[in-house]
Amino acid sequence: MAAYFLAIDGGGTSCRSAVADAHGRILGRGRSGASNILTDPDTALRHIEEAARLALSDAALADVAPEDCVALLGLAGNNVGDAVSYVLERLPFQSAQIVSDGLIALQGAVGDADGAIAIVGTGTIFIARHQGELHYLGGWGFQIGDLGGGARIGHAALQESLLAHDGIRASSALTTSILEEFGNDPRRIVDFARAAHPGDFGRYAPRVVQGAADGDPTALRLMRDAAAQVDEALDAVGRITENSGRLCLLGGLAQVYPSYLADRHRVRLSEPLADALTGAVALAVQTFQTSEAAR
Amino acid sequence: MAAYFLAIDGGGTSCRSAVADAHGRILGRGRSGASNILTDPDTALRHIEEAARLALSDAALADVAPEDCVALLGLAGNNVGDAVSYVLERLPFQSAQIVSDGLIALQGAVGDADGAIAIVGTGTIFIARHQGELHYLGGWGFQIGDLGGGARIGHAALQESLLAHDGIRASSALTTSILEEFGNDPRRIVDFARAAHPGDFGRYAPRVVQGAADGDPTALRLMRDAAAQVDEALDAVGRITENSGRLCLLGGLAQVYPSYLADRHRVRLSEPLADALTGAVALAVQTFQTSEAAR
Repeated sequence: MAAYFLAIDGGGTSCRSAVADAHGRILGRGRSGASNILTDPDTALRHIEEAARLALSDAALADVAPEDCVALLGLAGNNVGDAVSYVLERLPFQSAQIVSDGLIALQGAVGDADGAIAIVGTGTIFIARHQGELHYLGGWGFQIGDLGGGARIGHAALQESLLAHDGIRASSALTTSILEEFGNDPRRIVDFARAAHPGDFGRYAPRVVQGAADGDPTALRLMRDAAAQVDEALDAVGRITENSGRLCLLGGLAQVYPSYLADRHRVRLSEPLADALTGAVALAVQTFQTSEAAR
Repeated sequence: MAAYFLAIDGGGTSCRSAVADAHGRILGRGRSGASNILTDPDTALRHIEEAARLALSDAALADVAPEDCVALLGLAGNNVGDAVSYVLERLPFQSAQIVSDGLIALQGAVGDADGAIAIVGTGTIFIARHQGELHYLGGWGFQIGDLGGGARIGHAALQESLLAHDGIRASSALTTSILEEFGNDPRRIVDFARAAHPGDFGRYAPRVVQGAADGDPTALRLMRDAAAQVDEALDAVGRITENSGRLCLLGGLAQVYPSYLADRHRVRLSEPLADALTGAVALAVQTFQTSEAAR
């Protein structure tokens, strides 16, 4: 068995890494750039290796190479088999396993026990573990899913601004400020929306969050609509977990949602036990010690 | 003044034409292919000329060329000035004016009086004329507007199917049949949605309409949600028109919506006086006789 475990948490904006000893104690950490293996696998590979070397360097393990380590990687874009195969064949590690970025987040948040997480960021996905079995809900992307995510909230804010412009719905400080940003020209909003990626829409979500906190009626309605959608997904999670085990919110909107969610969910929320990288370390130890024991 | 008026009703799927005499009496009609001047101006130009020649031929005006006629064209995509200039310079007519396809529809539906139309097709747009002044509401396209349109309804049906797949919302015959069409593989729905144009989503709208007629609870909810959005737009139209004048529904969903709309709107609906092409003829006579008189 390798003496060291590498854990990788790779997403669309950064790649975080940790190196741990045989007991799972973290010795060093690193961080590099984007590592979405679906949209840009070669860049992801470069950033994964860079993050691994940075963690080894941070741990002062100058004589240990990535090739001497086993690695568990939680990666965005892992739901497409071809991308996983392409990357697995090119990784510099002694042995490696790729799982979803959601799975390492779940492991970090709830540990080995049953429990569930809601990742509420630009998109949304819900992951539950019940009697050891994993269940994924949502997470289908901005175009046709990700209800309650920042991109959908931002998109709704732009749509409301057009409705306010046309006098179909009431204006508010939120819609007025968005319209002003586009020179009060609805065609510029349409042009923006036509070219926008989910992250571009998502950049309007903080305006909605702030507006709702300030009592803006449109912003409040959008937050309540979004929270109702998260409530529905959490209801489905609760049917799976029988409302047992830890329930954690993660992601950029994790601090925002609790005050908007239904009481039945809010009372069940708790802080995650640890972060996704810690979850990846734990899974690395489990995975490679188990496979060692099975030999 | 030219002896003949050509009227063109050009949209994304076809280009209809009529030729009328100096009194606005329609002598012949024609029809050719797509003529959206924004997405494909050269094809639009070819189809406009073809439709014009077919109308002249239908009227047995073998010795009259398009160059001998004045023309009024109601065209989709007319809201972008560059496209209008490009097409205007290349039209084969003695003189021509381009207006929106919505304006000729309004003229056809309500004639010269004040009144309003709701065009509820793949997209939605609302046009009111009050005290002679025109007001446009909605119509900003699928990505950020067109609430209540067939594309949005079809999109919602696909989204509901994913929610049903994940157990977040209840399944129904509608969502089950859509999921089966995609081999019960949500990733295939996601792939479809990523590449889909509004018309592709819109092809699912008739399934929702039929499902709602059959009492499918999901389809009924989607139709009621869509109708609530049309109700809101019609409320805004009513504030402009002071609920006076004719109110007509046009477009592919015009026969579907009345039973779902609020009573306050349903009681005000009436059949359009005439079609868009007839509206274009009337506008052609007005436009070119007025400009003649002004010389």
